Amino acid sequence: MAVLYKADPVRGVRWAERFAQLAPDIPFRVWPDIGDTAAVRYLVAWQPGELAVALPNLEVVFSVGAGVDQLDLSQIPAHLPVVRMLEPGIVEGMVEYVTEAVLAIHRDLFDYALQQQARAWRPLPLRAAASRRIGVLGLGMLGTAVLERLRLFGFACAGWSRSQREIEGIACYAGDTGLAALLARTDVLICLLPLTDATRGLLCRRLFDTLPRGASLVQVGRGAQLVSSDLLDALRSGQLHSAVLDVSDPEPLPADHPLWAQPRVRITPHIASATRPESAVDAVLENLRLHRAGERMNGLIDRTRGY
Amino acid sequence: MAVLYKADPVRGVRWAERFAQLAPDIPFRVWPDIGDTAAVRYLVAWQPGELAVALPNLEVVFSVGAGVDQLDLSQIPAHLPVVRMLEPGIVEGMVEYVTEAVLAIHRDLFDYALQQQARAWRPLPLRAAASRRIGVLGLGMLGTAVLERLRLFGFACAGWSRSQREIEGIACYAGDTGLAALLARTDVLICLLPLTDATRGLLCRRLFDTLPRGASLVQVGRGAQLVSSDLLDALRSGQLHSAVLDVSDPEPLPADHPLWAQPRVRITPHIASATRPESAVDAVLENLRLHRAGERMNGLIDRTRGY
Repeated sequence: MAVLYKADPVRGVRWAERFAQLAPDIPFRVWPDIGDTAAVRYLVAWQPGELAVALPNLEVVFSVGAGVDQLDLSQIPAHLPVVRMLEPGIVEGMVEYVTEAVLAIHRDLFDYALQQQARAWRPLPLRAAASRRIGVLGLGMLGTAVLERLRLFGFACAGWSRSQREIEGIACYAGDTGLAALLARTDVLICLLPLTDATRGLLCRRLFDTLPRGASLVQVGRGAQLVSSDLLDALRSGQLHSAVLDVSDPEPLPADHPLWAQPRVRITPHIASATRPESAVDAVLENLRLHRAGERMNGLIDRTRGY
Repeated sequence: MAVLYKADPVRGVRWAERFAQLAPDIPFRVWPDIGDTAAVRYLVAWQPGELAVALPNLEVVFSVGAGVDQLDLSQIPAHLPVVRMLEPGIVEGMVEYVTEAVLAIHRDLFDYALQQQARAWRPLPLRAAASRRIGVLGLGMLGTAVLERLRLFGFACAGWSRSQREIEGIACYAGDTGLAALLARTDVLICLLPLTDATRGLLCRRLFDTLPRGASLVQVGRGAQLVSSDLLDALRSGQLHSAVLDVSDPEPLPADHPLWAQPRVRITPHIASATRPESAVDAVLENLRLHRAGERMNGLIDRTRGY
């Protein structure tokens, strides 16, 4: 019985170290050093390619990322469970990134940056956090953790998910009518949705137009959810005030893309959050235990939903 | 018995409304509409000028700000208690501002902004919050609240004050030897000290040189604490990586000052935190009650210390 890792090789070294430390009895192999293909029962991968078919005794495919949209599910035999990464390192990074983005928007830092360029010392009116309405799309582990942190600052917090959720202190909306209601009351919209057929192109003109005028966007989902020409129009018209984008379509964002130079747009290169090898190994080992005990693994995806 | 307010007149309207609502029996006057000078027992002011001498029956001088360095204490008769502003609005604003600044530094947003200008998509290594050492100078209400919030993100948190404090989960340093020890272990230094003879010019080359190379500064104290030429040198040499400055000397910062255009320096026009009239009136009314009951008021300053 062996685990095969096929993802970033630099991080693979840390995975291998942690695995050797915590589970010295389980052989951990880093692609392309596959060894005996028949021994590989578990695959940990960013993009498995044809490996999921080529490994005869494979039992589970683990994504190294929080999402599985980078996997081609059609390349993974239907009987194999696919598991996404739920581990505290990803959560910590996302809470940091989104909290910073929301506070920067709340405290007018885009405008102050423009004033600094103009060497202008001009205080703007201060708004209480309670009057700033935060809306999070996606109430999984990340969306929930982000809202629970933002709530401590006193923001008016709400979230939306496909099916109804209940989170203490958070106004929870669900379904299509719930989405319209959430958008209508949201000053800072945070997208933490998985990429699926239903969310591709969701962040478009029609959605922006239903936000209050002057709202802001924090996009930490997936690049293909955003129609960037619509975002540029909304920023130019003033319908949107500012945007913080950690993902783009394509990635890397081409050097000639107009978003780079847009005032009140911040672009970071998909760094909001990353799997931390140490805690990720803990999460995979726990799932190996659950799997061998015949129990449901954490992060098991539903192929019909795509997440 | 009347209260006289002499500070920003726009905010004075909100003070008057709140006062009328909560204490309709106490006349609240907004300067220059003083009325009968003999009736004024309490003065709420940013800079009282000669009023503290001119009002024959004055009992207490309240600063509208968290600090009292803008008051000329020599103009206030020695028998008059001077009280600084302790109220939750100031705390909320400061916690927001400093949390944003620390997260921005922690997540390399100065470097990503420079990369965005160069249209470069280049992820930098992600550091865990636990490996980032935060040090706060000043452990009053603001410093303590800031540390308690930052601690939730997992940062390694420490603080320094003149006399020894104890705060759960925070490494507390005190005195001159404590200051050296705090600085030696601090990656992000936050100044929340009052302006006194002891803190004027404290943020200078000698202090910067005792920080680990590549540390950052968040200056939310008072402008005269910072020697800006030393800061510029430290940034150019790489001893300091970045600085977030909400205060300057003088204020406004002159348009030709070199700090405006320094890469990895953010300047905001003294907006980190402001007294919120609504909660400030609550705080003043509570102090009126304490004063009339012969009890110690919250925020009473010690003139020999200057804060």
